[in-house]
Amino acid sequence: MNAANTSFLVIASILVLFMTPGLAFFYGGLVSKRNVVNTMLSVFFICGLAILLWIAFGYTLSFSGNYAGIVGNLHHFFHQGINLTSLTATKIPVGLYSIFQMMFAIITPALFVGAVVGRMRFKFLLLFIVFWSILVYYPMVHMVWSPHGILASIGTMDFAGGTVVHIDAGVTALVLSMFLGHRLSYEKTTKHYNLPWVLLGTAILWIGWYGFNAGSALAINNIAVQATMTTTVATASAMITWLLIDMFRTGKPTLVGTCTGTLCGLVGITPAAGYVTIAGAFWIGIVATFASYLFVNVLKPKLGIDDALDAFGCHGVSGIIGSLATGLLATKSVNSGIAESGLFYGGGWHLFGVQLLATVVTIIFVSVMVAIIVVALKAVVPMRVTEVEELEGLDIGEHGEQVDYTVGRDSEINDYQKEFTGQLAKLNNQFKMHNNWNRN
Amino acid sequence: MNAANTSFLVIASILVLFMTPGLAFFYGGLVSKRNVVNTMLSVFFICGLAILLWIAFGYTLSFSGNYAGIVGNLHHFFHQGINLTSLTATKIPVGLYSIFQMMFAIITPALFVGAVVGRMRFKFLLLFIVFWSILVYYPMVHMVWSPHGILASIGTMDFAGGTVVHIDAGVTALVLSMFLGHRLSYEKTTKHYNLPWVLLGTAILWIGWYGFNAGSALAINNIAVQATMTTTVATASAMITWLLIDMFRTGKPTLVGTCTGTLCGLVGITPAAGYVTIAGAFWIGIVATFASYLFVNVLKPKLGIDDALDAFGCHGVSGIIGSLATGLLATKSVNSGIAESGLFYGGGWHLFGVQLLATVVTIIFVSVMVAIIVVALKAVVPMRVTEVEELEGLDIGEHGEQVDYTVGRDSEINDYQKEFTGQLAKLNNQFKMHNNWNRN
Amino acid sequence: MNAANTSFLVIASILVLFMTPGLAFFYGGLVSKRNVVNTMLSVFFICGLAILLWIAFGYTLSFSGNYAGIVGNLHHFFHQGINLTSLTATKIPVGLYSIFQMMFAIITPALFVGAVVGRMRFKFLLLFIVFWSILVYYPMVHMVWSPHGILASIGTMDFAGGTVVHIDAGVTALVLSMFLGHRLSYEKTTKHYNLPWVLLGTAILWIGWYGFNAGSALAINNIAVQATMTTTVATASAMITWLLIDMFRTGKPTLVGTCTGTLCGLVGITPAAGYVTIAGAFWIGIVATFASYLFVNVLKPKLGIDDALDAFGCHGVSGIIGSLATGLLATKSVNSGIAESGLFYGGGWHLFGVQLLATVVTIIFVSVMVAIIVVALKAVVPMRVTEVEELEGLDIGEHGEQVDYTVGRDSEINDYQKEFTGQLAKLNNQFKMHNNWNRN
Repeated sequence: MNAANTSFLVIASILVLFMTPGLAFFYGGLVSKRNVVNTMLSVFFICGLAILLWIAFGYTLSFSGNYAGIVGNLHHFFHQGINLTSLTATKIPVGLYSIFQMMFAIITPALFVGAVVGRMRFKFLLLFIVFWSILVYYPMVHMVWSPHGILASIGTMDFAGGTVVHIDAGVTALVLSMFLGHRLSYEKTTKHYNLPWVLLGTAILWIGWYGFNAGSALAINNIAVQATMTTTVATASAMITWLLIDMFRTGKPTLVGTCTGTLCGLVGITPAAGYVTIAGAFWIGIVATFASYLFVNVLKPKLGIDDALDAFGCHGVSGIIGSLATGLLATKSVNSGIAESGLFYGGGWHLFGVQLLATVVTIIFVSVMVAIIVVALKAVVPMRVTEVEELEGLDIGEHGEQVDYTVGRDSEINDYQKEFTGQLAKLNNQFKMHNNWNRN
Repeated sequence: MNAANTSFLVIASILVLFMTPGLAFFYGGLVSKRNVVNTMLSVFFICGLAILLWIAFGYTLSFSGNYAGIVGNLHHFFHQGINLTSLTATKIPVGLYSIFQMMFAIITPALFVGAVVGRMRFKFLLLFIVFWSILVYYPMVHMVWSPHGILASIGTMDFAGGTVVHIDAGVTALVLSMFLGHRLSYEKTTKHYNLPWVLLGTAILWIGWYGFNAGSALAINNIAVQATMTTTVATASAMITWLLIDMFRTGKPTLVGTCTGTLCGLVGITPAAGYVTIAGAFWIGIVATFASYLFVNVLKPKLGIDDALDAFGCHGVSGIIGSLATGLLATKSVNSGIAESGLFYGGGWHLFGVQLLATVVTIIFVSVMVAIIVVALKAVVPMRVTEVEELEGLDIGEHGEQVDYTVGRDSEINDYQKEFTGQLAKLNNQFKMHNNWNRN
Repeated sequence: MNAANTSFLVIASILVLFMTPGLAFFYGGLVSKRNVVNTMLSVFFICGLAILLWIAFGYTLSFSGNYAGIVGNLHHFFHQGINLTSLTATKIPVGLYSIFQMMFAIITPALFVGAVVGRMRFKFLLLFIVFWSILVYYPMVHMVWSPHGILASIGTMDFAGGTVVHIDAGVTALVLSMFLGHRLSYEKTTKHYNLPWVLLGTAILWIGWYGFNAGSALAINNIAVQATMTTTVATASAMITWLLIDMFRTGKPTLVGTCTGTLCGLVGITPAAGYVTIAGAFWIGIVATFASYLFVNVLKPKLGIDDALDAFGCHGVSGIIGSLATGLLATKSVNSGIAESGLFYGGGWHLFGVQLLATVVTIIFVSVMVAIIVVALKAVVPMRVTEVEELEGLDIGEHGEQVDYTVGRDSEINDYQKEFTGQLAKLNNQFKMHNNWNRN
């Protein structure tokens, strides 16, 4: 065992695990006060569910054997027969590699929760994630990160999850939103519950992302350090780009925008983190933000799809940018282990073509599979809550909880207000009637 | 010095330190809005107090010398005469081992704060923790983790603190609740202040717990990796178990329940983390959750003890489960360094008997000592706040602070409401009197 | 490459990065509900801005070449021509050293945001940070931490940023407050938005500070472990000192005070962390807290400067104490690599004189430079928001956002209340008039 690599990967795994509650805060802060518990729990419970699924099905379907380059076998169901202490290529225990991969299997489904908030039944979500993990996520891991995978074999480069995590989750988000339909009383629900939680989520996601990106070197080496550097630079350029767009367009830079820009940079650099230069990272951050900004503010309103918290707009769009940019900006000068450089570094069009193909394959595969799962599952379990429940909020409807004491208090105050208004009106009326009666 | 081990233990120590403010958020989110500052400060100030106590008394009473297998000596008061750079068995500096243990001496007393919220005087808590650390905690550490300790010498296995931390804190919580008595206006106080803080606390506790459990290998090796794996699996199975119980019983899975289940898994696996298989961890999580669920929902109401936030129900009960389960599920196949395997892995009943004995000894020792300290201390300092203060809330009473601007605002609104109600009633009355007077 | 050192420094860098959003929460929790978004965003966006500035100008001006011991050159603008994988003295990649230093360049300007909350234009702040980074911060880094720096060459000891970070930021805060003037409606704005965010900020700052202090050893070695120990002890003694002062003076220990004390300890130990004993750290924590407490509660009210969140009172004052204390308490017994011990450890007055000189030079250099920048910048961009905007709050004025749903709700309730009061008064009047009219 390489102790330094092992220590680094343990800590990287912890950092990636921390991202999922971070995402719960990011999404929870953005929704309306009636749907915060539902949103946060919908993200957080995946920590438990996806771990158990990974132990049982995930590792073996992703990394054991191979069917047609698309998926593995079930020989190691529930990790049976795996020697956890045998070593990988970077001399970390196989058990640790499984843990690290497991953390990616948690955060990925958590990402698309952002699309369905405020109207999906919790039970449907739970069942969907079970089938989606088995039929979509583990195959994606196998195709890209298993040496036998079909996308790996054509030379797809995805350092830390551009296709597997972000395009995958983004496309799933888009298809789910289409099936689910618009939220009712749209405008009201977009009044954010609490912005500090959005910032906390962003901060946790950012620091956790170093586990994601630097950890994906699977060792503490120059590639891990470079991934740390590129992740930092792309995030900064993406954040400041969104801030400046806000300042130029409206004069008012927003916290929500700045946080969104931050995420776009993190997403964009993910597939490229260990392959590009500082300058490459800088430009990926800028382009990813521009693309996501355009999609969210210009294109989405025209599409008429209610991806509530822009899971596709952020993860899908910036993920696609990052995946394609890898085909342009990857360079052997940064990572001598790669097979070829991208277009801008003398590698010609080949890598870009591969990245484009992998991106398209991912989009098609995920769209089709998600559609199939949804159609099948809808036949058994209702997908959407009732109108009454949606208007009352899913916190009460699905969980019987309120997010904080002010929410219950707030409806009490509403009641007082109505009563006062009523009594005042009554008194005014009585007074008028009395005056009239006196006069007559 | 082994640099990889040292680096790992520094980071593990930081993670464990982070757990205590995490606990402040977990507990603070659960109490009523009048007691949040008190709850959070009661947990957080222990970071300062327990560090100073550990430096002065803790290390030396735990690890220097030996009186009857129960406690050490005071030769190294305030760390005097300790060569901080000498190395332990795993080649980390003694100073670092002291730091790591220090973090456990912080979180353990913080755990029982959950039992006494809303009614204990801050000054009493401060003094109690001083005496409890010296008379209960350091002896427990010595008995279990010093090679001379009486429980260590009979072969007690406690990987990361089932007896020392969780049963210890849980029993202390129970005895303190008994002496302290019920909260007044019980029902009102159980309206939670804010659930996102509960989730944040849970998330921080979870990631910090890897420092606790993996760090307890005192090295980065296969045992540390296994502890990372078992901690993850037990937490997941415990969380999902609670969620499913909620779904089957009420149809409404709750965020508070899911977070509580998460903690039960973390507590349950603690004594066993470096000794059991993935399957063992899976079952420990399930059983720990079931036991805590039963205690909190069925047994506690019958006991009539107001352990407000279930410090015993969670830490005590799941800690006992974990301690006993270690006697059943520990296996040399996972950890070749242990003296014997548990019952289910061919080791016979011996280890289970040892674990049972250690559990019972811990319960008795802690109960008796806590009772003595409370009785003695109550003679000097009042234990409970006045009724007036309790109803007003300890935030104002003990600290002169309100947790957020909405709390003060809320009582202003209450005042308005009363005034409006009064004025409306007055107007209605005048109107009636006037009408009557007119008629007469 | 030394893998253990590299791994340690990557994680230390992540921890230091986490401090800046931590500071956003600390400051954001303390301000009024109308200025939370502005405060948090003013801190957080520096993560983006300072990274880009560091990449472009910071590293090269700090560490490449030398002009008069005061500043470096621009040969490596945007990191061009730097071999990121070449190794430093502790065998970590130069790229990683740049990342670690970059994180300090983020948190330092974030610290002085605490002084200017509630009244500075966002655009002014943005531009000020650009010029301040180039004209104040990078020169300070060069002077103290570059081997060619003028303060380094006279033997200044600043382990992790007493002069460079804390006195620098503190003095900047003071000068900015003087130029900016008092907040309007002072008293109202000091009603804290939300204390749990203050505690969360404190907790994140504390754990992040280990990256700061232990990481400043630039290796995982005995100095790093000692810095971990001294940081812990000084923080604890500082926290408990503030708590006890509160208890003795008012009987009511406060969460805000306890958190402030915690920070004072962290600041005070920063320049000394790798040079002093446990006892030295203990005393530094106590003296730093006393000094900051006195400044904030006694001296500041007399100065009449509105350093809103005590950026100077905490970072400036405790930073000065720590810097001077290093001249008294540094000892070769802890760190054999230093040139001389302090006064109390047999080194005579020389080191104290050096530290005093470095402190005075820092104060003068920073004051003069900040004054110049402000005067020049004010000629181009307004420094302060309008009165109308200030009273409405900068969240709406500068960002068009409200921090949470209760804030908007709160003004609605205010409106209801006014309307009810008005209608009741009207009814009462009508009633009186009617009665008078009836009588006549």
